[in-house]
Amino acid sequence: MTSIKSIGYNVEIGKNSLKQLSKFISKSNYSAFYIMADENTNEYCMPILLKHAPQLANANVFEIESGESNKVLEVASNIWQTLLESNADKNALLINLGGGMISDLGGFIASVYKRGIDFINVPTSLLAMADASVGGKNGIDFGGIKNSIGTITQPKAVFVYTEFIETLPKQQVYNGMAEVYKMGLIADKKYWQLLSLTDFTDNMEQVIAHSIYLKNQIVKLDPFDKKQRKALNFGHSIGHAIEALSLGSKDELLHGEAIIIGMIMEAHISYQKKLLTKSQLDEILNTFFDIFEPVQLKIKNNNDILSLIKNDKKNAKGKSLFTLLHGIGKCRVDAEVTEKEIVNAINYYTKLKAWAS
Amino acid sequence: MTSIKSIGYNVEIGKNSLKQLSKFISKSNYSAFYIMADENTNEYCMPILLKHAPQLANANVFEIESGESNKVLEVASNIWQTLLESNADKNALLINLGGGMISDLGGFIASVYKRGIDFINVPTSLLAMADASVGGKNGIDFGGIKNSIGTITQPKAVFVYTEFIETLPKQQVYNGMAEVYKMGLIADKKYWQLLSLTDFTDNMEQVIAHSIYLKNQIVKLDPFDKKQRKALNFGHSIGHAIEALSLGSKDELLHGEAIIIGMIMEAHISYQKKLLTKSQLDEILNTFFDIFEPVQLKIKNNNDILSLIKNDKKNAKGKSLFTLLHGIGKCRVDAEVTEKEIVNAINYYTKLKAWAS
Repeated sequence: MTSIKSIGYNVEIGKNSLKQLSKFISKSNYSAFYIMADENTNEYCMPILLKHAPQLANANVFEIESGESNKVLEVASNIWQTLLESNADKNALLINLGGGMISDLGGFIASVYKRGIDFINVPTSLLAMADASVGGKNGIDFGGIKNSIGTITQPKAVFVYTEFIETLPKQQVYNGMAEVYKMGLIADKKYWQLLSLTDFTDNMEQVIAHSIYLKNQIVKLDPFDKKQRKALNFGHSIGHAIEALSLGSKDELLHGEAIIIGMIMEAHISYQKKLLTKSQLDEILNTFFDIFEPVQLKIKNNNDILSLIKNDKKNAKGKSLFTLLHGIGKCRVDAEVTEKEIVNAINYYTKLKAWAS
Repeated sequence: MTSIKSIGYNVEIGKNSLKQLSKFISKSNYSAFYIMADENTNEYCMPILLKHAPQLANANVFEIESGESNKVLEVASNIWQTLLESNADKNALLINLGGGMISDLGGFIASVYKRGIDFINVPTSLLAMADASVGGKNGIDFGGIKNSIGTITQPKAVFVYTEFIETLPKQQVYNGMAEVYKMGLIADKKYWQLLSLTDFTDNMEQVIAHSIYLKNQIVKLDPFDKKQRKALNFGHSIGHAIEALSLGSKDELLHGEAIIIGMIMEAHISYQKKLLTKSQLDEILNTFFDIFEPVQLKIKNNNDILSLIKNDKKNAKGKSLFTLLHGIGKCRVDAEVTEKEIVNAINYYTKLKAWAS
């Protein structure tokens, strides 16, 4: 059982975390409880939650259809309407029981309802446990842009019940690990080495706890994403573009798959800028291809990727600003990257020997 | 020229404030400027703003139809769409040029666009200058409830150009003064006495500056409205209910008119609870009736008012919690008030001698 202090709240990790949640509820003074879940977490995780926290048996449940396409204003608007109709006051608590989609949507709904009610996160996917449920970023997709409307509002507590991972398909577990490896690359060389050499499924709780610890250290320095927090963007400038292009196609990528490709390409840009050696670049590539199924990328036209990268919200004044690695375990934010460097990185990836076999 | 420090930003008050705005723009590093106005402020105030801050000549202008009925999600949604289409990035600045409706709507739009872009307020009504433009509360009306969706997000600066008041009809000026008198009653006995004895139109700048100063002192203690800030609710528990009931009727009340009635009734409840003497209650009534046109109230059924008060977002756990005066210039928040005390106060007001003449 691990407990990590964040910005005014605790993250409780491990088998006893749902008992901690039950204690949190008992000590609290909320006027009403609302739980947001999707059809899967409502079926598989809700009974476990209620077993540990029976005080929630009469909570109001919002079941949202799973899938990013429901993280939109219309769904938020329906929930606000229902909250008003059930007379939810400023002292109500919203509990987000689900993956990143649920905590993004629920966090946004709570952060603006009556100018902000309290919410807590109970992440059920590895990605949400290790990454999305801490740090306070929330949002909905609007106008075709991911998280273009949202706030940065911290939860009142996060309860990471790692046993939920056993309810997940293996592919989803691996998908979540991309952000965990990223934490090692940008902030902790020893952790990266450990993740490279050992089987992470043997000690999920410690692996997740350390990832949250590292992310929390960064978020505390810069909650509003002005400087140090941008470290977390490593792999995401190209990764997000690749993910967006794949959406709806028959080769649709999972977030983790896209981010691994993004990290390899952005590591190559770091190498082009002499921030990484060739052997460090090789180490990163080999580790990823060892642990994750290598994903070949079919790119018809580099311009589609380049144009998405240009419109990224991380940019400023028309310049493409990336987070690059500076050796393994360290990074540099706001590094200006040229189109040529991006094209070189795409070519590096698409012409890897791995695809020849 | 007065400058007041608030939570991380300055409020500049007086004839030179728009020059200060121009300086603020020149020193800043924003990627684009957007101005939100209504048809009136776009016609009468925009030319004055642009004269003082010619750098804004090419700013994008959103003209919103005036009136509270446009402070809604559909309008916010259209603006977000337009911001996205014009590629507004996280370094864009939104300038709210208008009364409380514009700063409420614009503040909310800015506080969630790309998880928050900077905004500044240029209030054009007395009410917005003395009250709404500082403190960071914003919001839209949703599900028929005022400000039920919103955030508390501080602006980057507020510029109070008191000359704009000259563009306003007299009734609107008086409407705005209700909140100014309230500041005296809850926080500053000498200011209340000054406002009672002198003609405030003779020295608008000082009167507004002191009202902002007092409000700012309270907001700084409690930005998120947990305790001390509730002092600002004096007159609003009953006042909001009366205002809501009048909306759309032929006797529709201005916000200031409703709040003055609310303050008189809530002063009477303070008197019932022995927190005010009879002579203090008389002083409050006589001052208001001296300076503002007394407004007679036609109430068909007390239950309409009582039921709205019951559903007020300021309540907790089914109890009606008011802010009451404790002598003049001091107040007590979260005072529990009974139905009988509210009915007594309504009867006191509706049976005043003033209506007999």
